[in-house]
Amino acid sequence: MSDPIDFYFDFSSPYGYLASARIDALAARHGRRVRWNPVLLGVAFKAMGSAPIAEVPMKGEYSRRDFARSARFHGLAYREPSHFPIATVAAARAFYWMRDQDDAAAKRLAHALFEAYFVRDVNIGHAGEVVAIGAAVGIDPVPLKAALEDQSLKDRLKREIEASIGRGVFGSPFVIADGEPFWGVDRFDQLDRWLETGGF
Amino acid sequence: MSDPIDFYFDFSSPYGYLASARIDALAARHGRRVRWNPVLLGVAFKAMGSAPIAEVPMKGEYSRRDFARSARFHGLAYREPSHFPIATVAAARAFYWMRDQDDAAAKRLAHALFEAYFVRDVNIGHAGEVVAIGAAVGIDPVPLKAALEDQSLKDRLKREIEASIGRGVFGSPFVIADGEPFWGVDRFDQLDRWLETGGF
Repeated sequence: MSDPIDFYFDFSSPYGYLASARIDALAARHGRRVRWNPVLLGVAFKAMGSAPIAEVPMKGEYSRRDFARSARFHGLAYREPSHFPIATVAAARAFYWMRDQDDAAAKRLAHALFEAYFVRDVNIGHAGEVVAIGAAVGIDPVPLKAALEDQSLKDRLKREIEASIGRGVFGSPFVIADGEPFWGVDRFDQLDRWLETGGF
Repeated sequence: MSDPIDFYFDFSSPYGYLASARIDALAARHGRRVRWNPVLLGVAFKAMGSAPIAEVPMKGEYSRRDFARSARFHGLAYREPSHFPIATVAAARAFYWMRDQDDAAAKRLAHALFEAYFVRDVNIGHAGEVVAIGAAVGIDPVPLKAALEDQSLKDRLKREIEASIGRGVFGSPFVIADGEPFWGVDRFDQLDRWLETGGF
């Protein structure tokens, strides 16, 4: 059985949201599973000396238009969040905590978090919102709330981010399939052909 | 008759090269013409506080792999230039000089310049190479050589670049169709649908 495809994303990334709606189906067409790995891009941005795209002169204005247009192009609901970008520490921690227990539940949580942030304009930067969104998809809020304050979960996220940097992940979405890196939902056509052909 | 589609690019941009091989055919499918506009991205990079992608930590390594893979994906020859990126002042000036006389000849020159740089590893940063490449596609080297040293052509390129900045052009390739901006050859799918539907 082949290794899973690694899907890296930041919960505050619009392109990560678009990718999250397509990655599992794309992989499944090739009989592959996907491991989801939320990261915080701030660390990579520091290494690159760069800033979130929406804060860059010229590129920022374009990107806001492109977020919305790309969502329409892919047939996905999208509303520009009032607070953007945000720190998605709590969302990422909650995801890993859930993934360790139940991968399918973690993905349901991730979809719900993306939808809350990019469709209903809920500020998922707040841990309270993350817990509430979890509850709405069937995750017991009591242990989740406790876990979010636990040092071991904080350390866990740090290690995941360090590992992603070590693998060259610098953007969202970022997919690594059989060692080959693909940055951007606009590389899904190449990813698709790569999985089909085993490389080109 | 509708306005032409504006295609902006830097002669030292690999994605600009890939786009140059496809843009005219894409537009023609929708009965549209394309106006080609070489620019020097250094000016926009200064405004954004950014650097050429290949010089950015993490992103640089990825991008070199992506240039070659994207070329294979699009079925185009590609060899990483020994000198990259380069200042393409002479190439851009030569293009505008030719465009004012004969648009088709200017496009032939552009294709030949891209092919020289990205397939045959010729350093088109040298004015002498630009003139020689022009000669090979039937452009008289004597008036071209003289034009490249003329102040009015230097001013002309400056004005074109200023105008592109004014229209929000910050990358290569960059297409503006009926006021709508598209950055990247990976937005050609959206451009194609936009021209088909008149907007989505």
